[in-house]
Amino acid sequence: MSDPLVPVLARIDETLPQALERLMALLRIPSISTDPAYAADCARAADWLVADLQGLGFEAASRPTPGHPMVVGHGGAGGRHLLFYGHYDVQPVDPLSLWARDPFDPAIEETAAGPVIRARGASDDKGQLMTFLEACRAWKAVHGTLPGRLTIFLEGEEESGSPSLVPFMTENAAELRADLALICDTGLFEGRAPAISTMLRGLAKTEFTIHAANRDLHSGMYGGLARNPLHVMAQILGRMHDASGHVTIPGFYDGVEDLPDTLRQQWQALAFDHARYLGDVGLSVPAGEQDRTPLEMIWSRPTAEVNGLWGGYTGAGFKTVLPAEAHAKVSFRLVSKQDPARVIAAFRHWFAAQLPADCRVEWHDEIAGSPASVMEISDPAFEIARHALSDEWGRPAAFVGEGGSIPIAGYFKTVLGMDTMLIGFSRDDDNIHSPNEKYDLESFHKGIRSWARILAALA
Amino acid sequence: MSDPLVPVLARIDETLPQALERLMALLRIPSISTDPAYAADCARAADWLVADLQGLGFEAASRPTPGHPMVVGHGGAGGRHLLFYGHYDVQPVDPLSLWARDPFDPAIEETAAGPVIRARGASDDKGQLMTFLEACRAWKAVHGTLPGRLTIFLEGEEESGSPSLVPFMTENAAELRADLALICDTGLFEGRAPAISTMLRGLAKTEFTIHAANRDLHSGMYGGLARNPLHVMAQILGRMHDASGHVTIPGFYDGVEDLPDTLRQQWQALAFDHARYLGDVGLSVPAGEQDRTPLEMIWSRPTAEVNGLWGGYTGAGFKTVLPAEAHAKVSFRLVSKQDPARVIAAFRHWFAAQLPADCRVEWHDEIAGSPASVMEISDPAFEIARHALSDEWGRPAAFVGEGGSIPIAGYFKTVLGMDTMLIGFSRDDDNIHSPNEKYDLESFHKGIRSWARILAALA
Repeated sequence: MSDPLVPVLARIDETLPQALERLMALLRIPSISTDPAYAADCARAADWLVADLQGLGFEAASRPTPGHPMVVGHGGAGGRHLLFYGHYDVQPVDPLSLWARDPFDPAIEETAAGPVIRARGASDDKGQLMTFLEACRAWKAVHGTLPGRLTIFLEGEEESGSPSLVPFMTENAAELRADLALICDTGLFEGRAPAISTMLRGLAKTEFTIHAANRDLHSGMYGGLARNPLHVMAQILGRMHDASGHVTIPGFYDGVEDLPDTLRQQWQALAFDHARYLGDVGLSVPAGEQDRTPLEMIWSRPTAEVNGLWGGYTGAGFKTVLPAEAHAKVSFRLVSKQDPARVIAAFRHWFAAQLPADCRVEWHDEIAGSPASVMEISDPAFEIARHALSDEWGRPAAFVGEGGSIPIAGYFKTVLGMDTMLIGFSRDDDNIHSPNEKYDLESFHKGIRSWARILAALA
Repeated sequence: MSDPLVPVLARIDETLPQALERLMALLRIPSISTDPAYAADCARAADWLVADLQGLGFEAASRPTPGHPMVVGHGGAGGRHLLFYGHYDVQPVDPLSLWARDPFDPAIEETAAGPVIRARGASDDKGQLMTFLEACRAWKAVHGTLPGRLTIFLEGEEESGSPSLVPFMTENAAELRADLALICDTGLFEGRAPAISTMLRGLAKTEFTIHAANRDLHSGMYGGLARNPLHVMAQILGRMHDASGHVTIPGFYDGVEDLPDTLRQQWQALAFDHARYLGDVGLSVPAGEQDRTPLEMIWSRPTAEVNGLWGGYTGAGFKTVLPAEAHAKVSFRLVSKQDPARVIAAFRHWFAAQLPADCRVEWHDEIAGSPASVMEISDPAFEIARHALSDEWGRPAAFVGEGGSIPIAGYFKTVLGMDTMLIGFSRDDDNIHSPNEKYDLESFHKGIRSWARILAALA
């Protein structure tokens, strides 16, 4: 029997112009979710996708929420049930004056790096989600069926905080639960290597006020005698890291696991150009834990970061005040099995124990944290997908980390009990959330082919 | 020959009601210098004082400035030429709703602590400056002459930054220069002991920005790898004091002299109730150099204080940002012969030497500093005045320090080359700059008698 994938890839190549036409039709709909003026456009984008899914043989519907509708479709058959997630809403386009063309009048433009699709949403996330639907379409055209048992789940509020997401998932958990989730909303590693994100750092946050005197004091009358809470804050936060960049809070590293050797080898093979990554933002030296590689620092190691601090007089000119209060916001990127609540408790205990006389700390409202998402890569689907991506892109794909959280992956785990394979084809210069967003034609074309290979291998 | 002071003191006691009437007339003029709507009232207060001085035999005039007028009067004769400084302008009165009566409708009120004069300016500084003029008046009434060679110099912009003061003093230096300046704008020590301020701390200020990345970074993408300037700021400022409260900046203590034994003994005799002083503002423990007494901490020791710091996200909610910049305002109270420019240079050198890779510090515009004012108490006038005050108040007067700067005393030294005796009778509960300002009748009465004694002894 011949390989069922070969004619599908050929079909994808032959029908790329039509696939682009469909993407452009979707890109012409200004589905800006955060602006109520575009609510009808969001609904129109959802309807467009429902119709497209129905054309592919999915049983699909636009499902109402208190916000913009969800698109849910079910189709195909097979042993492994896969759920694909994407979002059809887009970011606002202002400042419009910085766009070289109408953001909702998409076009193919030639650039030095090759042809690109220019439009709001081209990369985030309409172009990416359509790679999956086009792979299904080519498969259906060649083989008459969908490539496996699939549920499509498309959100219209991702760019506006996803207020309806968890309630909708919770209400429809039985319907949405699958064996594995697929998300196409990430990028190529350094814009060239295909990658599957299998580790996402979690996040814990806290905010506090140090109180000292019961009012602001004049530094002439009290300076040298009274406690200055700005000094206290600087002294304690200044001790949060040692000279080697390690976090000094007792218990902070509880639950942090070492990187498995297989991942360590894959990450080394990526030959991450940290000098360029830092150079892009005007830096040159990895400033974190000095016994870790740069990729470990951002993917597999936890952090303790002051995100904001303030106190005393911060306006123009000068005021010789000893303030009554000092304030800070501190967050922690979490990995492995670190527990957000325990990390916050450890920080608060460590902090409070260092307060001198006459100071007290007030912790502000509890802020929900999220643990790291660590996918079970022993599931053969991950290795299968990695090989499929390597074949398509002609270079080894890697299991990579994500320094930031991707909330939907966490919800799939906590609400629906399934792991997620995050595979995407965007590039760092796609200008997502910025003027002149684009998606490389190569990303779109090879993205479709990548999904065809992955679905063929998983089917 | 009988003591010429005795009939003067009797005259002061007998004519206290008339002296109060005069003070009330001055208090009725709403000479708020910072509000242009009261410019005519400021001029009226100046004219009132000129007329009063002329009635006492001074050659006096209201002298124009770009702002409110100066009042200058010359009179009397004698070997030692004294210049008396006060200010006739007052602070604004808002919030008016917190006043128990019209701030410009003065009245004598009985309180648990004795009768007080209630009005804006009663203590700061109309009541205080009138103690000096009333002493002159009584002397003149009894002896027909002024008590020595006197220049009166009254400002109308003290509460609005004294913009015209130094230019006026510079232009009229020859006219204003005297052997010694007297200022009545300070208070009794702990509201009971007469005091002469002979040491005033100076001040040096600096402001800086630490720059790291060339833009704000997302802590998911860069956290753990990129330098966080908030950490750098906390680490360096957190090291500015050691565990004993000493400033760690090399060279900072250059020029700091030990307290002379005579002053140390006087200060010990004051039995400063630091527990009450700190307790008033909700504190309990002296937080400065642990080998110094509380009075030394605020009067004779230098400080390094962060007056403001800020950076990153400081609004409501949370933003997981690694900011590009961190900011702080730092000031130093100076004593003895510390040089403001050298202290700032030492701080900047120390700070910059601790910056890690990828950080640079930007120092903001130079802010003029002022050295400490240390009066030459070997001038017998100081000891003479101290004895006169001790006699009047029935308890030993002391040479005390002032933790804050009193710029006019510095200008008298730098522009006119003369030392200043700062003697005043206000109390901490006088509510200066606040609603319901008052001046104790005792302060007014004994203040007049104090000046009569001092002038008699110096004449």
